[in-house]
Amino acid sequence: MVYQMENLSGGITAVNGIDAAGVHCGLKNNGDKDLALIYSREPAVAAGVFTTNRFKAPPLLVTEQHLAGTVRAIVINSGIANSCTGEQGMADARTMALLTAQKLGLQEEEVLVASTGVIGVYLPMQKITAGVEQAASLLSAAGGSDAARAIMTTDKVAKESAARFTLEGDARSFVIAGMAKGSGMICPDMATMLAFLATDINVERELLQEALQEAVAHSFNLISVDGDTSTNDMVLLLAQGGSTPQLEKDSPLWPAFKNALLHICRDLAYKVVADGEGVTKVIKLTVRGAVDYAMGRRLARSVLNSTLVKTAFFGEDANWGRIITAMGYAGVDFIPERVDVYLGNVQVMAAGKGLVFNETAAREVLMQQEIPVLIDLKLGTEEVTGWGSDLSYEYVTINSAYRS
Amino acid sequence: MVYQMENLSGGITAVNGIDAAGVHCGLKNNGDKDLALIYSREPAVAAGVFTTNRFKAPPLLVTEQHLAGTVRAIVINSGIANSCTGEQGMADARTMALLTAQKLGLQEEEVLVASTGVIGVYLPMQKITAGVEQAASLLSAAGGSDAARAIMTTDKVAKESAARFTLEGDARSFVIAGMAKGSGMICPDMATMLAFLATDINVERELLQEALQEAVAHSFNLISVDGDTSTNDMVLLLAQGGSTPQLEKDSPLWPAFKNALLHICRDLAYKVVADGEGVTKVIKLTVRGAVDYAMGRRLARSVLNSTLVKTAFFGEDANWGRIITAMGYAGVDFIPERVDVYLGNVQVMAAGKGLVFNETAAREVLMQQEIPVLIDLKLGTEEVTGWGSDLSYEYVTINSAYRS
Repeated sequence: MVYQMENLSGGITAVNGIDAAGVHCGLKNNGDKDLALIYSREPAVAAGVFTTNRFKAPPLLVTEQHLAGTVRAIVINSGIANSCTGEQGMADARTMALLTAQKLGLQEEEVLVASTGVIGVYLPMQKITAGVEQAASLLSAAGGSDAARAIMTTDKVAKESAARFTLEGDARSFVIAGMAKGSGMICPDMATMLAFLATDINVERELLQEALQEAVAHSFNLISVDGDTSTNDMVLLLAQGGSTPQLEKDSPLWPAFKNALLHICRDLAYKVVADGEGVTKVIKLTVRGAVDYAMGRRLARSVLNSTLVKTAFFGEDANWGRIITAMGYAGVDFIPERVDVYLGNVQVMAAGKGLVFNETAAREVLMQQEIPVLIDLKLGTEEVTGWGSDLSYEYVTINSAYRS
Repeated sequence: MVYQMENLSGGITAVNGIDAAGVHCGLKNNGDKDLALIYSREPAVAAGVFTTNRFKAPPLLVTEQHLAGTVRAIVINSGIANSCTGEQGMADARTMALLTAQKLGLQEEEVLVASTGVIGVYLPMQKITAGVEQAASLLSAAGGSDAARAIMTTDKVAKESAARFTLEGDARSFVIAGMAKGSGMICPDMATMLAFLATDINVERELLQEALQEAVAHSFNLISVDGDTSTNDMVLLLAQGGSTPQLEKDSPLWPAFKNALLHICRDLAYKVVADGEGVTKVIKLTVRGAVDYAMGRRLARSVLNSTLVKTAFFGEDANWGRIITAMGYAGVDFIPERVDVYLGNVQVMAAGKGLVFNETAAREVLMQQEIPVLIDLKLGTEEVTGWGSDLSYEYVTINSAYRS
């Protein structure tokens, strides 16, 4: 069955039945928006993927609990992460959900909560209360980009993505859309990679969770700015569309839905990398011929997290020795004598041995804004692509004096 | 039993019966010494600890084979790593051992081989041949620092360490000494962390290996400049002293020997970190209350490898949120609600919650050249201390344009 997909402008409110708002309630000193509200006019089910960090922030714990039931809203603040705040932090996160529920006539359990910002600081609940009230009064189908701006911390641009997909010969069409903020992996002090997605397709919760986990595995979990995962990272996906028949796994719509979801997740993930602090280049690393996804991901992350690889790409230096070194300590059982490595179309290693290559051609590849790197393990059939950033002087500047 | 230890000046030739030499044979374009020879006048047994990188360079593979028998010499070149060089590389490494054996009247199997430098380049064997001849003719008990200089690549200073230890009431005394080069973890393109140690105590091979592994675990394996391990890393320890009785594990000398060995390894490891490229500060991180060594090491390495932690220390920013974040993704089962964190004597976290602390006092700690950080897990009794470096503009400068 053939399906089609078109990109839409805008973000999460491109989905029918989703309203949003973003306001300034006083958490950011510069007057920027710092509280976002997402509202589903119909009851929705929600899926979530959360940080694996051992320290988990209170809003994340509250959201995990609330995922089990029907979901109607997500309230998010930026500026303060409400992390490492103990029992008071748990109470504050619950109060955020309760305040939002009261304003919108919902149950507390129908509201998800997220926070991003400085760790170890308590939320000023009076400001949050005023912010929730104001945001609730501004909810609209045009509020998506206000909400996307309100979740930013050190992001330079708001990140939104939306797409419509249709099955050929099917009159119906569906939308998946979302927004993200991405300083998380760059700057966990202003913690958090957050993404909020919605769709108007009717999917049962377990199936939605399965689809989201798979999409995140091949998008957000394959990007690296500095390899850190924060205490607050989360990706949430709301599915309403209760009026349409429930999507089944054997439906021709299922692969179309999964593909569109992956498309949106990758688009947002890419925007997170490209907007990373001090990023001048994006490295697109493909690991081909892996035995399985885990092997490919582990190698991709090891290479993309290496500060030596990152600085070499910043310097436009065809330093493939650093790539294979980072592969070598990834803790993966590949066979060095089989490995081929390419920078763009320039092969630099064949069967584990270095090649004499055209330095000029290699440098041309390295001067591109997005640099494709291919590692072929020649072991299996799995192919995994990840995205990373270079490491520049600006990265050091931003991160050496961020908090103060 | 009480033992005493005194530091000696010089390096590996501080051990009686060890000669060394360092020469320039033409691998480095700037005329610096690039070939070192270490010679034991008596037959010695040797222990070795090698890189866990999946890519292993030919000299390392040859040395692993030769460790089984009696050892009389180590030949080392810098400038070219002889890594990713396939069968030709294996042949060249064997030839290095053979040439050295021929010059010194030894068996090929009695010579260990090490290389450090650019990956993927073949050794110019004519230059190596001339270098081995010259070095063999210059071997002397005064040649230790020439050898230490000849193994340097991007190191700014030669690294040597020596100590004498005695048991109280025992007329005998023993020496442990060595040299190291440390660009390995900073710059695996000019690959390698290398250390060569010798002692005049008589130890059986298996016991020597056990002692070396334990010392490396608490020294070289607990330092981090950028977390990379190269294709060529190795630590070798020669023990001769065949005329004295063999050291047994139940001898009072055994803990004295182990302590002196750890002292030398830590001293050299510290020098490697302090001389790291672009390093302005050394972070001394102690993880207290761990269940076991593995837990402590994993947490220490995760924190010390984090570029966010490194840049914060460079910026003298008391950013403890980054420390606990790096702990959280280390993949270790600690209990966040128990964790205390101190910067010097300033406590910043108690039982998993952030504290309001004296910023001025914290900044004073962060302005020190060596910054002590203490994490108390309050789980077990193991204490592990590691050393890491900050990440500065100079690091980016050096590593963004190293190869070219």
